[in-house]
Amino acid sequence: MKPSIPKGTRDFSPVEMLRRRYIFDTVRKVFELHGFMPIETPSMENLSTLLGKYGDEGDKLLFKVLNSGDFLSSLTADDLAEGNSNRSALKISDKGLRYDLTVPFARYVVQHQSEIAFPFKRYQIQPVWRADRPQKGRYREFFQCDVDVVGSDSLLNEVELVQIVAEVFAELGIFVTLKMNNRKILYGIAETIGHLDKMVDITVAIDKLEKIGMEAVEVELTGKGLDKTAIEALRPILELTGSNAEKIASLRKVLASSSVGLKGVDEIETVFGYCERLGVAIDIELDLSLARGLNYYTGAIFEVKANDFQIGSICGGGRYDDLTGIFGLKGVSGVGISFGADRIYDVLLGLDLFPKEEMVASSKVLFVNFGGEDERVALELMKKLRFSGISCEIYPDAAKMKKQMDYANKRSIPYVVIIGESERNSRTASVKQMDTGQQWSVQFDVLDAIFE
Amino acid sequence: MKPSIPKGTRDFSPVEMLRRRYIFDTVRKVFELHGFMPIETPSMENLSTLLGKYGDEGDKLLFKVLNSGDFLSSLTADDLAEGNSNRSALKISDKGLRYDLTVPFARYVVQHQSEIAFPFKRYQIQPVWRADRPQKGRYREFFQCDVDVVGSDSLLNEVELVQIVAEVFAELGIFVTLKMNNRKILYGIAETIGHLDKMVDITVAIDKLEKIGMEAVEVELTGKGLDKTAIEALRPILELTGSNAEKIASLRKVLASSSVGLKGVDEIETVFGYCERLGVAIDIELDLSLARGLNYYTGAIFEVKANDFQIGSICGGGRYDDLTGIFGLKGVSGVGISFGADRIYDVLLGLDLFPKEEMVASSKVLFVNFGGEDERVALELMKKLRFSGISCEIYPDAAKMKKQMDYANKRSIPYVVIIGESERNSRTASVKQMDTGQQWSVQFDVLDAIFE
Repeated sequence: MKPSIPKGTRDFSPVEMLRRRYIFDTVRKVFELHGFMPIETPSMENLSTLLGKYGDEGDKLLFKVLNSGDFLSSLTADDLAEGNSNRSALKISDKGLRYDLTVPFARYVVQHQSEIAFPFKRYQIQPVWRADRPQKGRYREFFQCDVDVVGSDSLLNEVELVQIVAEVFAELGIFVTLKMNNRKILYGIAETIGHLDKMVDITVAIDKLEKIGMEAVEVELTGKGLDKTAIEALRPILELTGSNAEKIASLRKVLASSSVGLKGVDEIETVFGYCERLGVAIDIELDLSLARGLNYYTGAIFEVKANDFQIGSICGGGRYDDLTGIFGLKGVSGVGISFGADRIYDVLLGLDLFPKEEMVASSKVLFVNFGGEDERVALELMKKLRFSGISCEIYPDAAKMKKQMDYANKRSIPYVVIIGESERNSRTASVKQMDTGQQWSVQFDVLDAIFE
Repeated sequence: MKPSIPKGTRDFSPVEMLRRRYIFDTVRKVFELHGFMPIETPSMENLSTLLGKYGDEGDKLLFKVLNSGDFLSSLTADDLAEGNSNRSALKISDKGLRYDLTVPFARYVVQHQSEIAFPFKRYQIQPVWRADRPQKGRYREFFQCDVDVVGSDSLLNEVELVQIVAEVFAELGIFVTLKMNNRKILYGIAETIGHLDKMVDITVAIDKLEKIGMEAVEVELTGKGLDKTAIEALRPILELTGSNAEKIASLRKVLASSSVGLKGVDEIETVFGYCERLGVAIDIELDLSLARGLNYYTGAIFEVKANDFQIGSICGGGRYDDLTGIFGLKGVSGVGISFGADRIYDVLLGLDLFPKEEMVASSKVLFVNFGGEDERVALELMKKLRFSGISCEIYPDAAKMKKQMDYANKRSIPYVVIIGESERNSRTASVKQMDTGQQWSVQFDVLDAIFE
């Protein structure tokens, strides 16, 4: 039987690990430069924490952990007869794997509120699990990198997130466009066309604009009960063109009767203004079709697209005014974004942007092993190299030279050091650079220097 | 309802995260200097991979993940009537959370054998889950740091692991003793006293020697069917004293009739010899009572104890000749050790060994926010500081000075920068060091320099 892993999960090889580490280290460095600090939460949360937070579909996608011990006694013949797996699951399982980092974070803030100094700036880089149907680019275990600040409604936080997005992608070398919108503007639009009751339907439909086109969106809105007049009123808003400043100017007119809508325009203008004055190096686009699925956003909405690579959004988020309310702590506003590590990985790989020199998944130096006294001298020199921070290893047996060189090649070890009797006597090592085949004699005393 | 997390699991606060990172970074650095490379495996493995690898007790301690969809139809009324939760679990669950890193690693090696260049040196730092009864210092989710080399039976690998242990704990500042034994010596002892059939019983009993004492061990061995003569023959072996060299000399005599036993003595002498010649800076002690629970070790056995702190072993491992055999790949010998991150954390905390300057879970600098033009200048200066790698933040609102200073205090931010009108005009910032209360005026142009 060939061993395998559950579908939708992955092993990560050394090379893949180094690439992922490069991404995580980059976001972590930027987060920390801005004063965000790491936390981690358990992989398992109580199901009572998770259920009902992601909609009915989300509840089904939660991985539930079977209770230990005699779980069977919690099931009755009636349960079997009824055949409702969703309901019965809750009788034999009270823990689930986390589905995202946002709900555990909200739970964390409420549970630890007395220890936290607000505004609380945290980031979190951990795997999440979803029992989704696996497909290309969609996994059942994947990593999220979330950065949020809660306990402050200042727009400076939005500005800081834009800076963070700009700095992360500049550091990674990915050209991106940041799309921004504001949920208050969407509210204002719904209010203006006289269908405040349909705000969620409108935003869901708008969210699909880019995918399915204006006509299909209109059909959908009609289906939701919007009349012709309302749809006619909506159309020019969605078809706004021009620069951000022009769009904002138009919106001010269109939304003149909606104080909430105007508040949204003010907010986005303020954020744009800060970013411009600070010279934040990123293309920002006001995009009214940006609504995002999650219904808890109440202010800014962010989404980042790579300019030179065809893939969904690689980063997204927004402001939510009452995330912790579900756990009993009211009035804590927050704003955050999440970096999609898997997609960023695909972009960097696709555009060949991983820095070559950091992606060597091996020692820098292999010492060939000739056994006996040669081995002894090699081991001594290796101590010195490691002391200088140079990773190295010795082939563990005095195997044939070819076998040892093959190992160096297969592992992509860049340098091989050969120490035989003549090298020992002259206290010089033969150093071979594997990709060029170039070879040098280097005195033992300065061997570490050439690898630094 | 106050939110909570499942028993035996933990949240990690920013300070705890930095401490853990310090441990992980230290072991990672040492592992990589020796040419070990990271891999990661999925949190969930197929239960067929995990079951039967940890004994009956271990099977019970596996967290099993409920199958998605209509799992209920796999259960029958007979299952309910029978009430065997262990058996029924396997009908409704085919995935489990990993219990350790060793079995997933063996599975990885077999599954990816064609991509791997042997000897394969890998390390792995990931959480594992066990449905153990939670108690002080024992968690249901905890991290292991495993380092192994497979595909080589050279004793140089054992020597390298000793070097790694020495370097990790030297780096962490923990004084430790490395206890070593060899399973072949234990075999030789069983053979010599004429009870090869009882080798497992003998080693299990020996393992308990330190905990329960010689008398209780003898009772246990009698219970297992060893007669007086055999126990008498065993006693002097267990009570061996003196230096490692003296113990080795005695063992050579006692085990003269056991070729396997002598091989074990040779092996341990070879490893000791290498370590001595290389000047590996660690106390190593040959300890025959060291057997460790796991039955798959076939050669060297390691265990590390902290000298100055009362706690169980903080690191342990050994050689196993046939780890991958269970997955169909025979003849791959390996040796590895596992660092117990949680216990190492407790030792470092207990002995106050975490480096203070790296454990600041905050920005280095808080800019006080006076709004308007003052804020603008602060934001500009912050860009410059971050560019120099100095983490900083601004209070997000122009709140009262006291509130902002309180925030800096609570977050343990070491420096506060104040920029008001007079500072703007003179292009100098007021810098306050929070712990000493000391204050300076620093020109804007050199502000980054004082924080470096």
